[in-house]
Amino acid sequence: MNTFGISHIRTAAERLRGHVVRTPLLESAMLNARAACRLLVKAEPLQRTGSFKFRGALNKLLSMDEATRRRGVVAFSAGNHGHAVAAAAHAVGCPAVIVLPDSAARIKVECCRWWGAEIVIYDPKKEDRAEVARAVAEPRGMTLVSPFDDLDVMAGQGTCGLEMCEQLNEINVRPDAVLVNCSGGGLSSGVTEAVKHSFPDVEVYIVEPVGYEKMARSLASGLPEKNSSVPQTILDGISGPVAGALPLEVLRRHRVKGLSVSDAQALGAMSAGFRYLKLVIEPGGAAALAAVLSEKASFAGRNVAVIASGGNVDADIFARALSLD
Amino acid sequence: MNTFGISHIRTAAERLRGHVVRTPLLESAMLNARAACRLLVKAEPLQRTGSFKFRGALNKLLSMDEATRRRGVVAFSAGNHGHAVAAAAHAVGCPAVIVLPDSAARIKVECCRWWGAEIVIYDPKKEDRAEVARAVAEPRGMTLVSPFDDLDVMAGQGTCGLEMCEQLNEINVRPDAVLVNCSGGGLSSGVTEAVKHSFPDVEVYIVEPVGYEKMARSLASGLPEKNSSVPQTILDGISGPVAGALPLEVLRRHRVKGLSVSDAQALGAMSAGFRYLKLVIEPGGAAALAAVLSEKASFAGRNVAVIASGGNVDADIFARALSLD
Repeated sequence: MNTFGISHIRTAAERLRGHVVRTPLLESAMLNARAACRLLVKAEPLQRTGSFKFRGALNKLLSMDEATRRRGVVAFSAGNHGHAVAAAAHAVGCPAVIVLPDSAARIKVECCRWWGAEIVIYDPKKEDRAEVARAVAEPRGMTLVSPFDDLDVMAGQGTCGLEMCEQLNEINVRPDAVLVNCSGGGLSSGVTEAVKHSFPDVEVYIVEPVGYEKMARSLASGLPEKNSSVPQTILDGISGPVAGALPLEVLRRHRVKGLSVSDAQALGAMSAGFRYLKLVIEPGGAAALAAVLSEKASFAGRNVAVIASGGNVDADIFARALSLD
Repeated sequence: MNTFGISHIRTAAERLRGHVVRTPLLESAMLNARAACRLLVKAEPLQRTGSFKFRGALNKLLSMDEATRRRGVVAFSAGNHGHAVAAAAHAVGCPAVIVLPDSAARIKVECCRWWGAEIVIYDPKKEDRAEVARAVAEPRGMTLVSPFDDLDVMAGQGTCGLEMCEQLNEINVRPDAVLVNCSGGGLSSGVTEAVKHSFPDVEVYIVEPVGYEKMARSLASGLPEKNSSVPQTILDGISGPVAGALPLEVLRRHRVKGLSVSDAQALGAMSAGFRYLKLVIEPGGAAALAAVLSEKASFAGRNVAVIASGGNVDADIFARALSLD
C-alpha cells in the first residue's frame, strides 16, 4: 500500500472544507475536577448526521472520478456509516444503496431512506451482507464504500483529528494523551496519524467494549482479528465484527495502546456528557470519555483529549444514562 | 441613559475574547424539514457554565475598575445568573456572594459553591431578596450585578448575537427572522441590537412562557410590567418576576414582537434538540425553538435563527422530554 500519511488527511480537509462542521472542542472546569485532569472533548455528535462518519463517506465520494461516482455507491451498515453514506450521496447527487439486516431499528432505516437512499433488507441468519452488497453493486457498476478499510475513508475521519490539533494549538494546549473509540479502526487510524504528526510524543489509546477487544488483539498479533461472537453490549457503534487491515497497520506503526470499558462505564460517561458538556453522546461514542473517567490509565494531572464520536442514541438508552445522574 | 448600541457590544466582544466559547451555529437537514424552514440554532448550552449568562457576568466584572472589582460582587439568582456570576468572579479572582432562596435546588447551591462563592440563604416568604442582597453588599462595598437591567450585562449577552451574525455571514445566510428567549430582557436586548445592526430588515421575536408574557405586555404599555403571580411552569429560566427597563427601551426601539409557548411545546423542542442537534437544552432555553416548531408565526420557507440559551436541566425533566421522542 501507499503509506497513509498526513498529506492524505490534509487533502481530505481541503475537499471537505465548507461541507462538514468544524465541531467544537469542549471543556468543563467541573468535569476536569471530576476527571482529575484537563480534559478536552471533540464534539462529533454535532457533525452532520450525528457522527464523524460523514467525513469519511463524503471524502470517499469526492475522491471518486465523476463517471464512477455517477454510478453510485453501496454500503452495508445498520448504523452511522449507512446514514453517513446516504447523506453524502445526497450531498453529491449520486445514487446510494444501503444494505440493512431485517433486524435494523426502524429509525435507522428511516434515516437512510430520508436521504433518498435505496434500502435493501437481508436476513443475517441466511445471507452474508458482503455478498448481498456485491450482488447489488456489481451489475450496476456501483462502488462499495467500506466503513474503515479504505484510505480515503480513513483520511476523511482523520480530518477530525487534524481539526482537534488546530484547536489544541489555538488554546496552547499540548496533549499528553489522546483517546479514540475504535471498532474497525477508520477513525482511530486517521486521528492517530493526524495527532502524531502535530504532537509526536503524545500517547494514543484506542478504546473498545470490554470483552470484545478485537483491535487490541490485532495490535498484539499483527493480524486483523475478529470478535468470535456477536457482542452483547449497548456500545453498538464500536462492536463491529472485524478490525481493518489498513487501520491496523497505521495503529501499529504509531504504537497505539488498547483500553476497554463496560456498558455501565459508557452510561456514566454519557451522564457526564449530559451534565457537564450539554452534549448527547451515544454509548459507543462515549467509550473514550468513559475510559478517562474510570481511570483506565493514569491520566491524573495531564492534558487529555478525547473524541466523542457520535450522538445517535435512542431515547430509552439515553434515559438509562440520565437515571444515573 | 446613554443609548445602548453596537459599540457597547463590540467592546464587550473584545473584552471577552478567549474567555468565552464561540458557540457553534447548528443546523440539521432533518430538523429543517420538520420546521419547514431553514433553521439555524446558536448553541449556548455549550457556553461556560452551560448558558449565555456567563457572557454578561464576565463583561460586567471586566468593566468595573480594579478597586471596585476587588471588593467583590453580589447576585441574587437561583439559576443560571448566580452560577455565571460565581464562575466569572472565580475567573477574575474577586469575591462573590450569591443570595439564594431556601427552596433552591441543592444542585444549584452546589454549583455556586463549587466556584468558591459565598452563599446566603433567605426565606422568600419572609424576606425580600433585593433587601437581603443589599444588606450583604453595602457594608462590604460589594457591587450588585443585575441579571439584565445593566448596560454591561446587556452588552455581554449581545456578544452572542454578534457571533451569530458573523456565523450567518460566514455561510452566506441572511436571516428573515430571529427568535430569542426572554425574561428580564438582557439577552434579547443585546441580541436584538446586534442582529438589527447587521441585518436591519430582520424581524425579531421574543419568546416567553404562555400566560406570563410580562415583556410582551411591557412592549405594549411602554412600562416594565410584572408577572402578577409566580409562574407555574417548567420554563424556570424565563419566568422571572419583572421585565427590565433598559432592555425594554431597546426592544421597543427595534419594534420587537412577542410570542409565547407552553411547557409541552418546550418539551417537544427539547426532544427535537436531543434527536436532531444532539444538544441538551433546558426548558426555558428551548422556548424560541419551540415557537418555530409549533408555528407560532409564519416562518415557512424562510431563514430563521434561534438562540438555544442554556442547557442546565435536571435529569428528570430531560427524561420527560425524551419520553416524547
